[in-house]
Amino acid sequence: MQSLLNDILTEVQPLIGQGQVASYIPALANVDPNQFGIAVCDTEGKVTTAGQATTPFSIQSISKVFNLVLAVTYYGESLWQRVGCEPSGLPFNSLVQLEYENGIPRNPFINAGALVISDMVQSRLISPHVAMRDLVRKLSGNDNVLANTDVAESEFEHRARNASMAYLMKAFGNFHNDVEAVLHNYFHNCALEMSCVDLARATQFLANRGFCSLTKEAVLSQDHTRQFNAILATSGLYDEAGSFAFRVGLPGKSGVGGGIIAVVPGRFSLCVWSPALNKMGNSLAGVAALESLTRRINWSVY
Amino acid sequence: MQSLLNDILTEVQPLIGQGQVASYIPALANVDPNQFGIAVCDTEGKVTTAGQATTPFSIQSISKVFNLVLAVTYYGESLWQRVGCEPSGLPFNSLVQLEYENGIPRNPFINAGALVISDMVQSRLISPHVAMRDLVRKLSGNDNVLANTDVAESEFEHRARNASMAYLMKAFGNFHNDVEAVLHNYFHNCALEMSCVDLARATQFLANRGFCSLTKEAVLSQDHTRQFNAILATSGLYDEAGSFAFRVGLPGKSGVGGGIIAVVPGRFSLCVWSPALNKMGNSLAGVAALESLTRRINWSVY
Amino acid sequence: MQSLLNDILTEVQPLIGQGQVASYIPALANVDPNQFGIAVCDTEGKVTTAGQATTPFSIQSISKVFNLVLAVTYYGESLWQRVGCEPSGLPFNSLVQLEYENGIPRNPFINAGALVISDMVQSRLISPHVAMRDLVRKLSGNDNVLANTDVAESEFEHRARNASMAYLMKAFGNFHNDVEAVLHNYFHNCALEMSCVDLARATQFLANRGFCSLTKEAVLSQDHTRQFNAILATSGLYDEAGSFAFRVGLPGKSGVGGGIIAVVPGRFSLCVWSPALNKMGNSLAGVAALESLTRRINWSVY
Amino acid sequence: MQSLLNDILTEVQPLIGQGQVASYIPALANVDPNQFGIAVCDTEGKVTTAGQATTPFSIQSISKVFNLVLAVTYYGESLWQRVGCEPSGLPFNSLVQLEYENGIPRNPFINAGALVISDMVQSRLISPHVAMRDLVRKLSGNDNVLANTDVAESEFEHRARNASMAYLMKAFGNFHNDVEAVLHNYFHNCALEMSCVDLARATQFLANRGFCSLTKEAVLSQDHTRQFNAILATSGLYDEAGSFAFRVGLPGKSGVGGGIIAVVPGRFSLCVWSPALNKMGNSLAGVAALESLTRRINWSVY
Repeated sequence: MQSLLNDILTEVQPLIGQGQVASYIPALANVDPNQFGIAVCDTEGKVTTAGQATTPFSIQSISKVFNLVLAVTYYGESLWQRVGCEPSGLPFNSLVQLEYENGIPRNPFINAGALVISDMVQSRLISPHVAMRDLVRKLSGNDNVLANTDVAESEFEHRARNASMAYLMKAFGNFHNDVEAVLHNYFHNCALEMSCVDLARATQFLANRGFCSLTKEAVLSQDHTRQFNAILATSGLYDEAGSFAFRVGLPGKSGVGGGIIAVVPGRFSLCVWSPALNKMGNSLAGVAALESLTRRINWSVY
Repeated sequence: MQSLLNDILTEVQPLIGQGQVASYIPALANVDPNQFGIAVCDTEGKVTTAGQATTPFSIQSISKVFNLVLAVTYYGESLWQRVGCEPSGLPFNSLVQLEYENGIPRNPFINAGALVISDMVQSRLISPHVAMRDLVRKLSGNDNVLANTDVAESEFEHRARNASMAYLMKAFGNFHNDVEAVLHNYFHNCALEMSCVDLARATQFLANRGFCSLTKEAVLSQDHTRQFNAILATSGLYDEAGSFAFRVGLPGKSGVGGGIIAVVPGRFSLCVWSPALNKMGNSLAGVAALESLTRRINWSVY
Repeated sequence: MQSLLNDILTEVQPLIGQGQVASYIPALANVDPNQFGIAVCDTEGKVTTAGQATTPFSIQSISKVFNLVLAVTYYGESLWQRVGCEPSGLPFNSLVQLEYENGIPRNPFINAGALVISDMVQSRLISPHVAMRDLVRKLSGNDNVLANTDVAESEFEHRARNASMAYLMKAFGNFHNDVEAVLHNYFHNCALEMSCVDLARATQFLANRGFCSLTKEAVLSQDHTRQFNAILATSGLYDEAGSFAFRVGLPGKSGVGGGIIAVVPGRFSLCVWSPALNKMGNSLAGVAALESLTRRINWSVY
Repeated sequence: MQSLLNDILTEVQPLIGQGQVASYIPALANVDPNQFGIAVCDTEGKVTTAGQATTPFSIQSISKVFNLVLAVTYYGESLWQRVGCEPSGLPFNSLVQLEYENGIPRNPFINAGALVISDMVQSRLISPHVAMRDLVRKLSGNDNVLANTDVAESEFEHRARNASMAYLMKAFGNFHNDVEAVLHNYFHNCALEMSCVDLARATQFLANRGFCSLTKEAVLSQDHTRQFNAILATSGLYDEAGSFAFRVGLPGKSGVGGGIIAVVPGRFSLCVWSPALNKMGNSLAGVAALESLTRRINWSVY
């Protein structure tokens, strides 16, 4: 495994720094694009790494995975009355579909879906972003995980499109709490900073039928885990989800911080990170590394 | 395996006949809804069945899989310049997306995508529907496979929406041949009649890294097979693709004749058939049977 | 004129109360639907009335006309860089078009357009809704015109869709002020209560080449007045604008309070009011009264 | 009048040839852009001209006016069950709206609407394009009016988008005849060649309450004439209709051949022609000439 990751690092070296770092807020725009890390965690908790695998980065939309874990815990199957599980076919932040489909987002991994999930969690918890932080600390075994409040506040200032989506869902009756309060928590979750190692550990349960080998607890049931991976496979990379399935063939979730988590069901969880993004908003070197990996050892689920 | 299929047959018995038989043409509307068959083919070619697994039915959109095989044979990777590999998020026959995306269909399994694939094949073959018939005869080992010309002609008479899509792509320069000629072949392919056993055999290569154990030939390369399965997983069941991944978790392709093929990569190809359809246009009892199967023995890829 | 209005009142009597009173806020839902008034003001300021022409009602979207007057005063032609002058072809509160057209509303009389106009006015005035109230008091000669703060507050509570539109425009850079502050003023303007007589007088300048005979001042230039009437003619009645041109043939603007103002350029301004609305959200008896009027004396501009 | 037209010709001289001649078919692409003509016809039939007012040009979409006359003759009010009278808000040849609104075109002056009108006429006449030719010959008093069959055939070859729309309406049940047969007639109507003088005379009835002073016959009833002008005012210039109302303020209809007819109800019909088009597909110098005209003598209806 170590030599495999070393080989991949060598292979993608020329791609590191290609693409564009997310620039819609200063805190993300200033990140050095010439960074790359990868970590693989097996079902017994053994972690192998290459590159800058212990450098924390902004997890951004990868937080949607943990957010959904919280919501499933509180709502179970009834969750799916307020959000679908279909790919969207449109950019992650489009309002068109939301209007035509009466405020029910297509899936929990586009922004509108994650916002409705956040709204649901908000209805049950006093401080959702603290609960989220505690969850990822527990799952990663790293008690130092923190949200970057500068990033959270900067995202809040640039909240216009997410606020627009939240209010549109409210107009359709599918958003129950105060929009600004939910966005406050939502952006704090996005601003969590974790390393590749942290995220590979924290998502191990997805490769392990719901069981976390660190805490020795079931995070999700086996059925829910399978469903999570199914939605990650069809909707985890925005409107590049099909292409990611085509090239990589693993359930996965990306964030504009340059991180991507991926799952080899029954075997491994992975996290790769490199800040510069391709045109679809996913880590350019990160996607390439995952593609190299599935090509080398045929880890694709397909 | 035999007892597994028997158990599934017993379990879905109450669902057989529920839903609606496709009614847009008389030849399909008159099919007896109270039929059900299932066949599983392993990678050595051994077939296990339950129910009416040798009754031929109209394969309809399942033909899109074989059509894509022909196109890959002739065009290789350049195929993807004229059609995408992303889920569509809209009904299978919508023109909206096609117009916004300048005549490039989202994927080869929505109607617009299958039409452009047919147009590509038409550019290389004198008689595409004969080539298709010969291909499925060879892959299924059944030399009696035939298209039902009554069905083909009836579909041609009701061609308006498909013709509209083809002409729209032509307006964008992404359709090169005569629309009516391509539709003629397209509808003949849809009108092929095959049984569950025929289809399980004919799609075995998808479970077998591209290799057909019957003909002892590679139908597709291993990489292309993985890509086929990826697109089947994200786009094979129209706008129910996400829900099918969620419930069943296998690459698959459905047709309005009530058939669904599915793939357990590395292990099995399957075909289930029952003519009555759910609201999304997929076999109601068929989807339930596949869901039962993956729940019973955890065949999901996720 | 008096007998004409009496005849129209008699003719539309059976329609009064037909349709549905606006029900999205309680303050509007409780209005008695069995009311009707009409007032006509000629270019010398002479007013003729029938029915309950001096009963104040909630002017709602008719306020968009006065809002645009304020904006033209401050911005002149540069106004049209931030809002178009084309009919929308979609419901008055749709976000679809706004997203496809990058946050530039189609015209100032759909909600998105009126919100951007309010945002512009907000950039120039400390208290826009006081300026608006003073404007309509001056133009109508009625110093008792007031906004109903219960209505304004209730509308603010139900602001979700308007807030969604404002935030979407902000995401595109076409909304500069605090969304809630602008909505506060916007809803106060909508909540102004005026009678048919007040509104016929206050819009007389549109029939009089921009000149108000009461104040003896030019409200708009002759060119701007012509342009105002053109936009009212193509976009004043939401997605019923074409039908209103077809049936009535006058520039006009409706509100969900049941009022409609209309203009016979060079001759008369009119206001008709009856609270029950047709399916498009315009006063059912009001549209019928205007149709009767143009049919009887051929006042149509066409 | 003569000196007015001379002044306008002088004023727009620098604009003649600016813009782009329609280039989608060779027969139109080869027209000399440096041409301009204008003709005004009063309600007694007196014609005043400037520039190349007797040069025939391809009337293209202006034919939709005469097509609608034929349809009203045969169908009366029932016509409006198959086509609306609302502005479209989208480009003239978009399919998006048609799909969302179930195959009912927004109005008779966008392509989809004109096609359904042609389909209706086809249901009543053996040879619609001959009937159309005879109608415009009669109304213009010019027995030499002919369709350019090269243009008609070239348009038919480039029929893809129009065919797509016709088939989409057929899929919704709103198109009854053979698509190619209707398109054949449709393109022959578009290919009629008439001069400014011909068109000013042929549309005089729109300025004259439906009465043609040449034939001394009512072409339309007074009510229908008012309705025609209303639709021309809200929908006659595609997605520039609102801007045309704003700048010019007259009912009008444009064609990609560079002609525009306009109506001053009760007073004049006009035709202006210059082949080079603005970005919206309307004659650049032609719109400017009409704007100059209404500014000079305040002919706007608003």
